[in-house]
Amino acid sequence: MTTRPPARVGDPVAAVDTPALLVDLDALERNLQKMAAFASKAGVRLRPHAKTHKCPPIALRQIALGAVGVCCQKVSEAEAMAAGGIGDILVSNEIVGEAKVARLAALARQVRVTVLADHPDMVAAYGAAARRFGAELAVLVELRSGAVRAGVDPGPAALDLARRIVAEPALHFAGLQAYQGGAQHIRDFAERREASERWIAAVAATKTLLAENGLSCELVTGAGTGTHAFEGRSGVFNEIQPGSYAVMDADYGLNRDSEGGFVADFENSLFILTTVMSRNFADFAVVDAGVKAGNIDQAMPTVWERPGLTYVSAADEHGAIKVATGGNAPHLGEKLRLVPGHCDPTINLHDWIVGVRHGTVEAVWPVAARGAVL
Amino acid sequence: MTTRPPARVGDPVAAVDTPALLVDLDALERNLQKMAAFASKAGVRLRPHAKTHKCPPIALRQIALGAVGVCCQKVSEAEAMAAGGIGDILVSNEIVGEAKVARLAALARQVRVTVLADHPDMVAAYGAAARRFGAELAVLVELRSGAVRAGVDPGPAALDLARRIVAEPALHFAGLQAYQGGAQHIRDFAERREASERWIAAVAATKTLLAENGLSCELVTGAGTGTHAFEGRSGVFNEIQPGSYAVMDADYGLNRDSEGGFVADFENSLFILTTVMSRNFADFAVVDAGVKAGNIDQAMPTVWERPGLTYVSAADEHGAIKVATGGNAPHLGEKLRLVPGHCDPTINLHDWIVGVRHGTVEAVWPVAARGAVL
Repeated sequence: MTTRPPARVGDPVAAVDTPALLVDLDALERNLQKMAAFASKAGVRLRPHAKTHKCPPIALRQIALGAVGVCCQKVSEAEAMAAGGIGDILVSNEIVGEAKVARLAALARQVRVTVLADHPDMVAAYGAAARRFGAELAVLVELRSGAVRAGVDPGPAALDLARRIVAEPALHFAGLQAYQGGAQHIRDFAERREASERWIAAVAATKTLLAENGLSCELVTGAGTGTHAFEGRSGVFNEIQPGSYAVMDADYGLNRDSEGGFVADFENSLFILTTVMSRNFADFAVVDAGVKAGNIDQAMPTVWERPGLTYVSAADEHGAIKVATGGNAPHLGEKLRLVPGHCDPTINLHDWIVGVRHGTVEAVWPVAARGAVL
Repeated sequence: MTTRPPARVGDPVAAVDTPALLVDLDALERNLQKMAAFASKAGVRLRPHAKTHKCPPIALRQIALGAVGVCCQKVSEAEAMAAGGIGDILVSNEIVGEAKVARLAALARQVRVTVLADHPDMVAAYGAAARRFGAELAVLVELRSGAVRAGVDPGPAALDLARRIVAEPALHFAGLQAYQGGAQHIRDFAERREASERWIAAVAATKTLLAENGLSCELVTGAGTGTHAFEGRSGVFNEIQPGSYAVMDADYGLNRDSEGGFVADFENSLFILTTVMSRNFADFAVVDAGVKAGNIDQAMPTVWERPGLTYVSAADEHGAIKVATGGNAPHLGEKLRLVPGHCDPTINLHDWIVGVRHGTVEAVWPVAARGAVL
C-alpha cells in the first residue's frame, strides 16, 4: 500500500509530480541548527517531537546536532523511529490497552523508552508489562495544563502518582511531563509569555513539593515551538520538546513576537507542491491539493511568495485559489508552493518527503511513521 | 511503510487495537443493496465513487450488485483500483501534467478509462498521450456547478469544448460530467431539491444544445449521496456517482428529509474505534483518536449510541469527550465507537479497514488507494 514516490533523486524540482511534500533542505538545516543552538545556550536538553515529521532521517540529523533523542505520541510511531535508528524515545502520551503496553515494554528492551502516566491503573499496567518483558521502563507524571487534557493536576495529585511509580519496582520514576499545548498558538506575545510563566510557576511548585517529599525529578520536560524560549530559559525545565520548528506552518506563522511582528525565529521549510488544474475564470484557480493533501483543522494553507493569491477553500482533492484583482494569475499547469496550514497532520497524509536544494531533488524520504496511529 | 493491522480475522471486536476504522459488514451490505436497488428502479447506471472507500473489496461488491464500474479522483487511485480488479474507471477530474497524463493513457490500455476536460489544452494533451500509447480514452466535458469549481459553464462553452474533443481522432467524446458538489450538504430538503432541479435544468439545456448541434451524449453522469434521488429520477442523467452512501458520516447525518427529520436512507456503517486514555475528571474524557485518526474539516465525530457523550475537540492524537451532567461516563480503557465527521478523508488516514459482523472480525482490508494523491 505504499504509494509511488512523486520524484526521483536528481530530478529538477519542476519535474516533481503533484501534490507532493517538499522540504527545502537548506531552510530545514538552518531551523535545526537554530533550535540546537538555543538549547545549548539555555543549558537544556533538546528532545524534538517526531510526531511532526515522522521521518527518521530528520530525527537522525536532529540528534547529530545534539538532540538527546525524540518524542513520539504512539507506540507504533516509536517502533518506526526505533527501526530508523533512534535509541532514546519518550512516548509523550499515556498508553492504555494490554496489547499496546506489551509492545511498549518489548520496545524498551531494544531502545531507551520513557512513557507518561496520569492514573494508578497505568502504573500497574506498565509495571506488570515491564516485569513480564524484563524491561526497564521510565515513567513521567503528566501534569494537566488545560481544561480538557490528559494529566493530573499540578500539586498533591502529582505527588501521589509519583509515589505509586516509585513503589512499583519494575518502573523508574523519571520526573514530570509538562507540555502546555494551549499556550503554543496564543497570538499575542505578552499573553503567550504570561500563560507560560503561570504554567512554569505551577510546574516549579510541583517539583518543589516532590523534592520536599524526597522525590527528585531528574527530568522536567515539555514546551513546544511557540513557548520553547520561556520554558527553555526558566531554570525549571531541563528538557524541551518542540517539533514544528523544523518545518513551520501557516498557523505558527500567525504568532506575534515581542515587537508585534510575526514570529520569524524559524523558516518555512515545508511546502505542498501543487499544480493548477483548472483556470477558466479570471478571479480563481483550482489546484490539485485539497484536504487529502493538506490538513486545514487549524489554518488554511497560504501561497508561497505569490502575493495576490489566496487559498480560500479546500474540497477533498481540490483547493480554490482566489486571484486578487490585478493579481498575477497562475496559468493552467503551473506549479505553486503552498505553506501547509498545520504541519503535523499534513505530513501524516503523505508517504514521501521530497528534499530539494538549489532547484534539484536531493532526497526522497519515506515518512516511515505515517499512519502510525496505534 | 505499511503499518501493522489493528486486528486479525477471527478476533473479537473487543480485541481490536485503537484507533482503528471499523466497518459493520451487515450495515455496509444493506447500504450497497439499497443504492443498487434505487439505481435499478430509476433506470440509471450506478458508478460509485471509490474516493470514499479506496478499497477494492468494497468496489468489487458494488459491481457484483450491479454497478458499472467506479469513479476515482486521481490517476494513482485509478491505478490502485485497476490493480484491485476494477475494469471500468471514470477519473472524475481534470488531469494536468505530462507524467500523469501518460500514466492515464497507459492505464487505458489495461482497463476502460474515461476522464474529464474543461480546457482545450487538456484535450490536446489527452489526445497526444492516447496516440502515443495507442490507447482508447473517453472524455467527458465537465460542467461547472458552483462559483469556485473546475468545469466550463453549461451552454455554449460546453458545446465548444465538446467539438474540440470530437475533432481529436484519438479521443472519444462520451458526454457530460455534471456533479454539483455544493448541493450535497444543503441541510433543508426543499432547498436541496431546488438546487438540484435548477442544476438538472441547466444540464438538460446543455444536453439539448449539443444534440441540436449533432453531438449526442451517451453519458450524463453526476450526483452524490445527498442528491442522487433527484438526478437519478430526472430523466436527464443516465448515471449516478454517489460514494458516501456506503458508509455515511456525521456530516451527512445532518441533512434533513422531506418530513424535516434527519435523512435515514443509509446507515452509519463506518466507525472509528477509540480507547479512553485519560479519565481523571468528572465532566470529560480523553480518547486516543484525534485529527490523525479522523478528519474534522466538515463536522466533528459523534459518539455512537452513547447519549450524554459529545466529542467536542480534537488535537493531533487526542479527542476530548464531554460528559453531560448525570451522563453515563466511560471508564479508563473503555472502547467507544465514533461516527467520523467526514468519511472520505478519514478513511484516507488509515491503512486498514476492519470488517466486523456479530462482534467478530471477519475481514481486514487494506485501504489500497490510501494516500494516492498523484
